[in-house]
Amino acid sequence: MTYCCAMRLQDGMVFISDTRTNAGVDHISVFRKLYTFGVSNERFIVIQTSGNLATTQAVIGHLQNQLELKLEPNLYSLNTMFEVAELVGHTLRKVIADVTSDTVEQSNYFCSLLVGGQIGGAEMQLYNIYPQGNFICATSDTPYFQIGESKYGKPILDRTLRYDMPLDEAMRCSLISFDSTIRSNVSVGMPLDALIYKKDSLVIPNGKRIYEEDPYFTMISKGWSEALRQGLIELAKPDEDYFQ
Amino acid sequence: MTYCCAMRLQDGMVFISDTRTNAGVDHISVFRKLYTFGVSNERFIVIQTSGNLATTQAVIGHLQNQLELKLEPNLYSLNTMFEVAELVGHTLRKVIADVTSDTVEQSNYFCSLLVGGQIGGAEMQLYNIYPQGNFICATSDTPYFQIGESKYGKPILDRTLRYDMPLDEAMRCSLISFDSTIRSNVSVGMPLDALIYKKDSLVIPNGKRIYEEDPYFTMISKGWSEALRQGLIELAKPDEDYFQ
Repeated sequence: MTYCCAMRLQDGMVFISDTRTNAGVDHISVFRKLYTFGVSNERFIVIQTSGNLATTQAVIGHLQNQLELKLEPNLYSLNTMFEVAELVGHTLRKVIADVTSDTVEQSNYFCSLLVGGQIGGAEMQLYNIYPQGNFICATSDTPYFQIGESKYGKPILDRTLRYDMPLDEAMRCSLISFDSTIRSNVSVGMPLDALIYKKDSLVIPNGKRIYEEDPYFTMISKGWSEALRQGLIELAKPDEDYFQ
Repeated sequence: MTYCCAMRLQDGMVFISDTRTNAGVDHISVFRKLYTFGVSNERFIVIQTSGNLATTQAVIGHLQNQLELKLEPNLYSLNTMFEVAELVGHTLRKVIADVTSDTVEQSNYFCSLLVGGQIGGAEMQLYNIYPQGNFICATSDTPYFQIGESKYGKPILDRTLRYDMPLDEAMRCSLISFDSTIRSNVSVGMPLDALIYKKDSLVIPNGKRIYEEDPYFTMISKGWSEALRQGLIELAKPDEDYFQ
């Protein structure tokens, strides 16, 4: 499985992906699922992938190939993030149509993608692209998207994430969301790829790869468990009628 | 959908179920999914249900019918909780076999059950009964089971629940697990049925029905959100390399 999360907030964007892929529990590998593209001072694009690995790698492969051979349209020639989302959606649809031309069962080859970034002076955008190639756009009401194994890590986001949350706090929130998922589901695993983009900076961040023994992640994980245990103890006890 | 959780701890047992059933988002009803049986000073049995409502009601109906007509074996004639789990499993298997005798697709009629309790001087037991009628038993290593929409509410249990946790704290932990699920998934809903059983008491608790406006539940829900927000702010900020 996979877990990817992306946020489009007032001050910028936060992206995290895990790297575990599995074909059965006895065939586990590490593959990057967070890809960055961009031209400094002009555009910054992130694509995160979930689903069939051959499909997601084919989508990224086609997009990179278009850039390498300067085929039009490509990620660096398009004018808006909306057009970027359209290109990614079309590429995905084409890859799935190709591989399933001789089969009736398309869903085995499905994947989902998150596409976020900023081009020139336009606003940052974040899109959730479905296997059919269509997509939805994040807003200040719903400033985050998840793909893959999303349920374990959703409650912390639903309780604490706000559009105007500072980026460092949003990163902590995402790391907890990942830690909670990894603890409860063995199909999501370290290392993680994390990236913070500051609004209007138009720089391409290197991002950070977080390994299992990462001191900051370990501290966050332990500190959070401790905070929850303490919070639980401090909540008022249930009334006597719970015991009757 | 449904969410049920049961815990077998050092000092006793905790059971909570939601009451929402749905056949599509436009057909939502309230049905009890937590049933208590017992004879004071002799035995206490709880059954929680998830899955096809006709199947779960048929299972409970057969078990009640056996008691009413004093047919053997029944929940009050069996000697151990293991035999109770076997009876429930057999009943479930028979109900599914009956309803699917003319169809190849059994899974539409599947349900899962949690069965917990205590008989005489024997230890408390908690069983997770699968649609096939077989089952597993909770231990001090894994003191809780969930059925239904379990993923949202699992991280809080995995981070904080311990076998030696006091019953009132385990109840708070369960309520948070339910609140987190209800906030993130509309297919699980209030009111909740909650019940605490004290080890060796052999009394049949009435339990508590928790409605949406329940003051204690509201306080727990708000208090927990506040505790998480505060805990998040207090965690150390990520290093500068997260921003590069």
